[in-house]
Amino acid sequence: MQRTIVFDVLNNDNGQVKAILGAKRFIEENPEYKLILVGQEEVIKNTLGKYAEKVEIISSNEIAHKVISPRDALRNQSSMLSAFNVLKEGKADAILSSGDSGSYITLASLKVKRLPNVSRPAFMPVLPTTTDKKMLLLDAGANLEIKAEYLNEWAKIASEFHKIIFKSNKPVVGQLNIGTEDYKGTEIAREANKLLKEQADNYSFKGFVEPSSAINGDVDILVADGYAGNIFLKTLESSFLGFAKLLKQIYMRNLKTKISALMIKKDLKGFKAKFDYRNTGGAYIVGLDKVVVKAHGGSDEVAFYNALNQIKIALDNNVIEKLKEVFEQAKEGEDE
Amino acid sequence: MQRTIVFDVLNNDNGQVKAILGAKRFIEENPEYKLILVGQEEVIKNTLGKYAEKVEIISSNEIAHKVISPRDALRNQSSMLSAFNVLKEGKADAILSSGDSGSYITLASLKVKRLPNVSRPAFMPVLPTTTDKKMLLLDAGANLEIKAEYLNEWAKIASEFHKIIFKSNKPVVGQLNIGTEDYKGTEIAREANKLLKEQADNYSFKGFVEPSSAINGDVDILVADGYAGNIFLKTLESSFLGFAKLLKQIYMRNLKTKISALMIKKDLKGFKAKFDYRNTGGAYIVGLDKVVVKAHGGSDEVAFYNALNQIKIALDNNVIEKLKEVFEQAKEGEDE
Repeated sequence: MQRTIVFDVLNNDNGQVKAILGAKRFIEENPEYKLILVGQEEVIKNTLGKYAEKVEIISSNEIAHKVISPRDALRNQSSMLSAFNVLKEGKADAILSSGDSGSYITLASLKVKRLPNVSRPAFMPVLPTTTDKKMLLLDAGANLEIKAEYLNEWAKIASEFHKIIFKSNKPVVGQLNIGTEDYKGTEIAREANKLLKEQADNYSFKGFVEPSSAINGDVDILVADGYAGNIFLKTLESSFLGFAKLLKQIYMRNLKTKISALMIKKDLKGFKAKFDYRNTGGAYIVGLDKVVVKAHGGSDEVAFYNALNQIKIALDNNVIEKLKEVFEQAKEGEDE
Repeated sequence: MQRTIVFDVLNNDNGQVKAILGAKRFIEENPEYKLILVGQEEVIKNTLGKYAEKVEIISSNEIAHKVISPRDALRNQSSMLSAFNVLKEGKADAILSSGDSGSYITLASLKVKRLPNVSRPAFMPVLPTTTDKKMLLLDAGANLEIKAEYLNEWAKIASEFHKIIFKSNKPVVGQLNIGTEDYKGTEIAREANKLLKEQADNYSFKGFVEPSSAINGDVDILVADGYAGNIFLKTLESSFLGFAKLLKQIYMRNLKTKISALMIKKDLKGFKAKFDYRNTGGAYIVGLDKVVVKAHGGSDEVAFYNALNQIKIALDNNVIEKLKEVFEQAKEGEDE
């Protein structure tokens, strides 16, 4: 079965060429995939060369800007909106863009159908930990206010993704909170904690976890309301960048420190790579009946190529079909 | 004027001797201060030696454990409860303990009067940034749900503390949020943002800030609801600990990395010290009419000594009296 990905190449901080080059590499390796690229036709054709005939091009010159209201997102012409329209018309199975997150989440919610019996889509980045494991976090900012059942639905969704991406069996889910005891946290958090305990099925539930155990790799999936999830994500990212900046300052201090830096350089590479967004890949927007991936705003060729592969893994493993089954069954169970 | 500090020495992960030694050093240097120590009398007397006659001792063998309800905190006998009773009876101006945070916040709320026209106490740690500046964060976990006016009150309180601790003139206050635009965040956050803009007086208001600008020293004071504040604090702490652990692993990898580590060791010390809680000091619980400080659970002699000095700075500079003026004036302003 041929699968199609629509890719908004225009919305990229580094210019569309990097995005197109990432697409080119993907096409070379995956002839069974069809790509629809949305961007400036001339640039796409020139960059792809002989591969231009392998893709469909939708011409667009308008970048998606920050939106204040859903109406803005729909009214303002942009390559991102055009890409979502392709998805809505049923002409593609997945979408990729590195444009403004707010616009992307808004358009995804408006243009893509939700999975059956799923209340809300969630933003799900793949995060590094201090161990070799990576972790899925959701929601990282799409829903600032939640209901208990959202977390339960998201845990189920993330578990299916985790099994596919990391070839895991029964991933461990933790719920982000200010303490581990059952009586800690807001009323909704405590209600969700109870629900997740009862419903744990395709995952094992660790209960409330604090940031430390998430960072140290104790869970495979971290569920949170989008407010706390976003603060957690951004604090983790900024701490690492801050740490790296300080370390660099120290290494540049004098000749001795510079020599020390040279000696450790190779070993530090792995450390840096662990927290490099290009290696962790794009963020999924889940809970929808298409595969929706948001690449980092500063993505380069490698990052886009990896994001396309991230989509491929999800499609090749029929993640959407599997999720439909999970949620249809959940509904049937309830109806009995 | 003689000032009195009541110090719960029993509640310490490292045993009470470290706490008593911290007190001893403080007494040696500050004969004008009176200390009331709550703990095991024999241990206190043996550790203090000739300084034992300079302090008042309240005998206690019961450590405060985690509390589920305020009733627990009041019912369970503990050195922490005894210390708060001293404060309640008006026999001391300030309190210090390194016991369980939840119990401490609960007892502080129940046993110490609030400042006039202040709605809620807040937990306020002093945090490092990637610059030379330190930052005050409040609330870091005492109030999971808030009203807009709490943030406004906390900004005023923290500003007075900042002026005293850091000898600043007009500190910069930022409000922690998932984005910097005025339309971002929850309804309460947006309401508070508006109120802080209008009321900025003894501080300058930077508006919404994301974790990155707080970590990079763009603000002197970070106001937040206790839920996001706690997640921010714990993520920041755990990230740095996690990175330090990874770095150490890399340095221990082989002979070459070990030599590199030796060469940079001295320079890395300052880096480590920056994020060492012993140097940032204890956390204040503010909004109360006494100086209330919570030392880190793993404090050693130096950390306790620093925490006592932190109290001394607040008392010597009449922070409570100043805050009473600020809030009496605020009230008069409203009444006009």
